[in-house]
Formats: sequence, C-alpha cells, structure tokens
Amino acid sequence: MTLVDMLDIVGTFAFGLSGATVAIRKDLDLFGILVLSASVGVAGGTMRDVLLGDVPPDSLKDVRLLLVASSAGLAAFFLGHRLEKLRRPVMLLDAVGLGFFAVAGCHKALTHGLPPLAAILLGVMTGVGGGVLRDMMAAEIPRVLREDVYAAAALAGAAAYAAAFHFALPLLPAAIAAIVLTVALRVGAEHFGWRLPRAPWS
Amino acid sequence: MTLVDMLDIVGTFAFGLSGATVAIRKDLDLFGILVLSASVGVAGGTMRDVLLGDVPPDSLKDVRLLLVASSAGLAAFFLGHRLEKLRRPVMLLDAVGLGFFAVAGCHKALTHGLPPLAAILLGVMTGVGGGVLRDMMAAEIPRVLREDVYAAAALAGAAAYAAAFHFALPLLPAAIAAIVLTVALRVGAEHFGWRLPRAPWS
Amino acid sequence: MTLVDMLDIVGTFAFGLSGATVAIRKDLDLFGILVLSASVGVAGGTMRDVLLGDVPPDSLKDVRLLLVASSAGLAAFFLGHRLEKLRRPVMLLDAVGLGFFAVAGCHKALTHGLPPLAAILLGVMTGVGGGVLRDMMAAEIPRVLREDVYAAAALAGAAAYAAAFHFALPLLPAAIAAIVLTVALRVGAEHFGWRLPRAPWS
Repeated sequence: MTLVDMLDIVGTFAFGLSGATVAIRKDLDLFGILVLSASVGVAGGTMRDVLLGDVPPDSLKDVRLLLVASSAGLAAFFLGHRLEKLRRPVMLLDAVGLGFFAVAGCHKALTHGLPPLAAILLGVMTGVGGGVLRDMMAAEIPRVLREDVYAAAALAGAAAYAAAFHFALPLLPAAIAAIVLTVALRVGAEHFGWRLPRAPWS
Repeated sequence: MTLVDMLDIVGTFAFGLSGATVAIRKDLDLFGILVLSASVGVAGGTMRDVLLGDVPPDSLKDVRLLLVASSAGLAAFFLGHRLEKLRRPVMLLDAVGLGFFAVAGCHKALTHGLPPLAAILLGVMTGVGGGVLRDMMAAEIPRVLREDVYAAAALAGAAAYAAAFHFALPLLPAAIAAIVLTVALRVGAEHFGWRLPRAPWS
Repeated sequence: MTLVDMLDIVGTFAFGLSGATVAIRKDLDLFGILVLSASVGVAGGTMRDVLLGDVPPDSLKDVRLLLVASSAGLAAFFLGHRLEKLRRPVMLLDAVGLGFFAVAGCHKALTHGLPPLAAILLGVMTGVGGGVLRDMMAAEIPRVLREDVYAAAALAGAAAYAAAFHFALPLLPAAIAAIVLTVALRVGAEHFGWRLPRAPWS
C-alpha cells in the first residue's frame, strides 16, 4: 500500500466519521448513518471526477473507498457517546483528509490540463464537497461556509501545490508540505481561534 | 410498449406525484409544482447516467419521461385534497417505482462493467435520488434517511438482482422477483411498522 | 470582446452578486461570501455542461467567469448596505443574466442535438441553477420555486429561441428578442405583481 493509498483511506475514514456524527445527531437509523457516511466520504472525489469527465468516478470503480467510508459509519454507530471524547483526534484526521483531498484533487486537475486557478478550486471542492453535501442533507447551512479557516486551509494547501507544480519542483515533497500547511492552518485556527473578516457593516 | 417502458412510466409518474405533493404542501405556484415533479421524476436516472458517463442522460434524450413526470404535477394540482385520500395507491405506485429504478439502475451499472457493490449502490441512488433532491429543495432532511426501510428496500432489490446477474440466472424473472421483493419490504414496513436500529445510546 | 462575452460577464456578475447578498445576510465570512458568489455565478452553466458531456465545463476551462463572479462577491463585501439601495439595477442585471443564460443554454443544447423540449429545460436550468444552489446552501426553499414569474420568464425566453431555431430564423436577432422577452416578463412581474396560479384548494 503506497503513501497515497494510505492518506486516501485516512481521509475517507475521517470524512465518513463526520457524516456519521451528523447522522447520529439527527437521530437517523443505522441505514441512514451508513448512507450519510458513505456519501460524505466519497462525494468530493466523485464531484471532481464528474467535472473532469473521468467517469465512472474512482469511488465506483474501486469499492474500497465506499467500504472504508461505511466502516466509519459502523464504528460511529457502536462507539456512540465515546466518539465525542475523541473530538480532537477526529479533528486531526479530518484535517489530514482535507489537506490530502485538496492536494490530490488539484494534482488530478492539473494533469488534466486545467489552468492553475481552476485546478486549485477543484482541489478545494474535492476537500470540502463531502462536508457541503453532509450539511445540505442535514438541512443546514454548510459549515464550511461558516467555519473560519476550513475551506481557506484547503485553498492554501492546493495553491501551494499548484505553485510547486508550475515551477516543476519535486512533487512528492511538495505534496507533503502542502498537506502539512493545510493541517497547520486548520489546527492553528481551531487552537488560536483565528477568524476571517466579516462584512464590515453587518 | 414493453414491460420495461411501462414500469419506467409508472415509476416516473409516482415519483412526480411525490414531488408535487411536497410542492403543494410548501404552497408553491403551478410552475414550482411542475418543476419539482419533473425534477423528482427524472433526477435519480439523471444522476446515474452522469456517473456512468452516458450523457446527455436518457431524461434529456427522450422527453417522454419529463412529460410523464410533469403530468403527475398537473394531476396533483387539479386533484388537490382528493390526492390525500389516494395515499395508499400512491404509496404502492411509489414502491413499484422504487423497485423498478433500483433494479434498472443496477442493471445499467453492471452492463457498464462496474463491480457489484458499486452497481448495487448506483441502483439505490437511482431509486432514491429523486426523493433526496425533493427534500433538499424543500429544505428538509431527506425522508429516505429517516424513513425506515425505504432505501433499505431498494438495496435489497438491487442486491438480489446483482446476485442473479452474477450467477447468470435468467434476467427478466430475476428483475421481476427483485422488484417484488422491494415492494414487499416497503409495503410490509409501512403496514407492520418495521424499523431499523438506531444508535443504541442516543 | 463580443456581445456574447459581454452578456456572459454581465450575467455572471449579477448572479455572483445575488450569491453574495445571501451570504452576507447569513453572516458568512469573506471566504464564504467568495465561495457562494463564485458557485452561484457558474453553477448553472456547469450543470449544463456536465449534462451535455462537455467536460471539463467552460467554468473550469476559462477562469474569467470565476474571477468575474468572485469580484461580485468582493464588491458586495465592500459595498455593504449601499447594495440594498441598488436593488433595482441589481434586479435588472439579474434579469439580463437570466435571459442570456436561458438562451445560451438552450442554444448549446440544440447544437448538441437535444430535442427542443429538453433544450428548453436545459436553458431554464442554466438560468436558474445557480439560484437553486444558492438557496439550497442557505438551507432555504429555492426562491425560484416560490418567486412568481422567474423560472417562467426563463422558460418563455428559451422557448422563443428554440422556436426561432426550429424555423431557421436568423439566430442573433432571435436571441436578442428572446432575452428582451425574458427581461420584460421578469421586470413586468416585479412591477405589476403578476402571479401564477396556486393549487385551487390550498
């Protein structure tokens, strides 16, 4: 198993957990929990593949990701309240997943010949798409639009990677640095309460 | 008109009705009712076709489905309150549609070479996608995530069909049996109040 | 810059503004505002391209549209309350964008060989798709389903253009006439309070 596979699985599992947490909070049954964790786990990558014309998407060609995301749902179902105590490690896994998906989405878009700005945005969408779907299905405003420095951290990681790609730097170290950057911004924002400006007059 | 065409039309009409019912409850105007019934009627199949790369999707290549789904909206508009009294036949039509779409979606995915688990999930998505969109547009949590044994009935039908496909059983009887299984589970759940487990600690 | 480019930019900017207005009302931060204006600005055209199989979509191949839509978000952020006073010009720009997108979407679908009814619907979706996404992300029922004579105005414009296309009339005058028709219906409905019928018994 390569490092890429491993990061992919970690991220998908973390995203699946976040779907399951919302599903449990909304009092969904076991099936609803599994559906929501699977959707959240693979939605970002699926949107990316549909927009790049790479269909059927990876999530359907290789069912490992769906299995990983559903396992997260199953784990959350049995862990129950103890999951709340794991809030910090879960948040860290989620940040790793966010950084990995943003960089991997950006990389795939660049190798499909998209212009850098579009590739960065597709990277962000890969990272946050699952969470957006999760909150829309829960009939809530996507947390990523409210939560300071979540999508912005994904944007920083994807932009750093796109710059490295543009200047033909070695890609593996660049990817790792970009993921670390996203995780650092995300964890720092959570720890120090960094915020982005709101409309001055609101 | 083949049996497949007929089931397709029955299912699309039933799904269109369910969209119209929500639209009327939310006090939308005639146009909103038509839009919602058309969207709900064809959304599941459209998502399936987009994910399989079969675009433009069937719903745009053959406008009969859109016309059938919109007719359901028009019928609901004029039937009004009398529609509430038809709750049971409408629920039965909806179950037939659910089973048909789940099996047809699974079949199309299998003939496109997807692995069985992915094909089953795409079948479920074909069956429930319209209802998910309907509830998201109504700013509600998708009923399919809450309603016990709705998506699960679609899953059972699609899985039974995928097993028959795998073992090269005759497909038409297998499809009919799988649709009957979905309808039986759905109607049984409604009648006997079957429920799926919730998180034990919630 | 051609007339088509100019209308495209006007429409994208107006749609971006409408996304930003909702984002500000929901108290999102700067980043959320930019994301929502960019999404609303390009969502309709992106859905159209995905359904026609023209991927990556225009919005990713040519980043000017994303930049225009985000600029609208930035402008709204700094204009603040003064934006409310610009309600009428913004509404007019929005109507122009609606008409242009409906006609351009219908045209693209017709040249891809879709049947007229499907092309008209794809035109309507191109026009209203961004607004639907905007309201779903704001956890509200899409205004286009409630607002009398919004989608209906797009439908009229797209249908007029499809008829002209069918009878091989000169396309540029037809397109302009269809856009004017949409704008007239939209502005007239706002000014005179035209309404569509609701379910008679509700």
